[in-house]
Amino acid sequence: MSELRRDPIVGRWVIINTDHPLGPNDFEKEDQSAKQAAVCQFCSGRESQTPGEVESIRLNGSLPNTAGWSLRVVPNKFPALQVEGEIDKRGIGIFDMAKGIGAHEVVIETPDHHKNLADFSDQEILSVIKTYQSRLITLAKDKRFKYIMIFKNYGESAGASLEHAHTQILALPLVPKYVLEELEGAQYYYEYRGRCVFCDMIEQEYQDKKRIITENNDFISFAPFVPRFPFESWIIPKKHGFEFCSLAQEGRHNLAMILREVLYRMKKCLSDPSYNFYLHLAPLNNAYQDSYHWHIEIIPKLTRVAGFEWGTGFYVVETEPGVAAQHLREVVYSGV
Amino acid sequence: MSELRRDPIVGRWVIINTDHPLGPNDFEKEDQSAKQAAVCQFCSGRESQTPGEVESIRLNGSLPNTAGWSLRVVPNKFPALQVEGEIDKRGIGIFDMAKGIGAHEVVIETPDHHKNLADFSDQEILSVIKTYQSRLITLAKDKRFKYIMIFKNYGESAGASLEHAHTQILALPLVPKYVLEELEGAQYYYEYRGRCVFCDMIEQEYQDKKRIITENNDFISFAPFVPRFPFESWIIPKKHGFEFCSLAQEGRHNLAMILREVLYRMKKCLSDPSYNFYLHLAPLNNAYQDSYHWHIEIIPKLTRVAGFEWGTGFYVVETEPGVAAQHLREVVYSGV
Repeated sequence: MSELRRDPIVGRWVIINTDHPLGPNDFEKEDQSAKQAAVCQFCSGRESQTPGEVESIRLNGSLPNTAGWSLRVVPNKFPALQVEGEIDKRGIGIFDMAKGIGAHEVVIETPDHHKNLADFSDQEILSVIKTYQSRLITLAKDKRFKYIMIFKNYGESAGASLEHAHTQILALPLVPKYVLEELEGAQYYYEYRGRCVFCDMIEQEYQDKKRIITENNDFISFAPFVPRFPFESWIIPKKHGFEFCSLAQEGRHNLAMILREVLYRMKKCLSDPSYNFYLHLAPLNNAYQDSYHWHIEIIPKLTRVAGFEWGTGFYVVETEPGVAAQHLREVVYSGV
Repeated sequence: MSELRRDPIVGRWVIINTDHPLGPNDFEKEDQSAKQAAVCQFCSGRESQTPGEVESIRLNGSLPNTAGWSLRVVPNKFPALQVEGEIDKRGIGIFDMAKGIGAHEVVIETPDHHKNLADFSDQEILSVIKTYQSRLITLAKDKRFKYIMIFKNYGESAGASLEHAHTQILALPLVPKYVLEELEGAQYYYEYRGRCVFCDMIEQEYQDKKRIITENNDFISFAPFVPRFPFESWIIPKKHGFEFCSLAQEGRHNLAMILREVLYRMKKCLSDPSYNFYLHLAPLNNAYQDSYHWHIEIIPKLTRVAGFEWGTGFYVVETEPGVAAQHLREVVYSGV
């Protein structure tokens, strides 16, 4: 018998296979070997092939857009949105339209074509988190932007067209639909019960224990009770808060450590799967700050989304999250 | 410059590439050649490998579950939901749960392993539509079910695990999220403007002309102004109505003809792409009947959905729908 579960934030129902959960070896494996190294535009020495950097970490005083960096941020060469102009909202008959204004940046996380977040040193993974913060602070100054989405595609079937380790940052003139649903769902819960729904989820995970993957002083990672995908994993600050950018040195360090650990556990447990992750943060106008609780959602790409999901928004999840968390916990991890 | 467009029904914003739209040859091609014929459980002569049929079309008086059929409906061997029991809703802490009650059937559309909807004869495609209606009427009698989703996965990257032509039918104890959003969006529009939003969309497509793919007396097909995917195409009755099952002989015939035509145009235009389609119908209790307008959405699988889409519900569509419709219109079609 399968089980129907309803997400307490946005009200999404999913179907969970509780009787015969699929394990790590029941999914198709993907080859992640590097194929683009010879021509990769993100590699050290090919700085001229990207748009000019807007930020970088350079330890030896090297010049911008030359070798000698450990991390670079550049505008996306083929941006989904463009930075010039005004949003210019208008209607055509029953349709609403606007110009595609925004910013689309790429964080090139390492000069090394063969390294990925799960294998980064403490310093390297910490630099990535610091850079997320500094880009957010910079982009938030542009008052045309309402929301900033930070996301990563790793592996071909997760939509990565370039294999060199990178994160994308998209500043949007609108708050996107899924985020708005979470903001409104959390707000409704907060008004109704006077508590944060994410804090209540964390509390329940501590009570149930089964779905916790790992934790440290500031963060906990668990497989959510109502995932959309098998082995979906969240990372969330233990303390209520809407502000990712206010994380100081220790918080940043602990976030970097838990992010690397969860990615490492996924890599070992699921044979280096393709995955996406994204940060769900509050909108730039700081609305919903009492009720929202920022977090990271990590979704390994193990199955194909089909007509049922596209037609309904209902998901069939073949691995019960308690089972997924157990597999992830069993990976031996003692730092990289 | 790209363009932001907002869906008038559910309020979803998408980013449309208007400057450099991708054409049919810009997407990766997929090999759809038959690989499973030797072992296919849906082929004629292997009736004993499926659960017993619940309905079939047999012209020569052959017995159930033997050869001699032109179409069979069988329960899914690995159902996402099971038909026995009560839904038994309950709470665990902050979570809501229910038993996975429902019905999961498969329409095996032809005994021929090498044929698909786009190549069906008039009689064959008409039988498929008739069967959708008769299964809906039968399943709707079970008062535990609130919604019936009819959907098709064609091709591996669209999530089809079996290549033999088939449609899946899932009877659900709940109205799924995307459908509810459409129902509520259409209801809101109806209350606000006193008109059906789908009828207004059809009217606007007639005014703009650019996005119409084809039409007949009862149905029109167009590439919606705000798609989620490149070459997404809808088929919708020209006359307002929430009832798919009330389609009589002529309407059924015209639906069968336009469905086959649009699938044929996609097949030729996009080199036999994988695709999903699903019927968006009103819920079984006939709520929302003034404001809802049933239709079919067809989504060819040309691109990979990545972290941005999963995190935001915001889609980047690389082919402007007017361009997509033009490519689809240019396919020469004179019936099969």
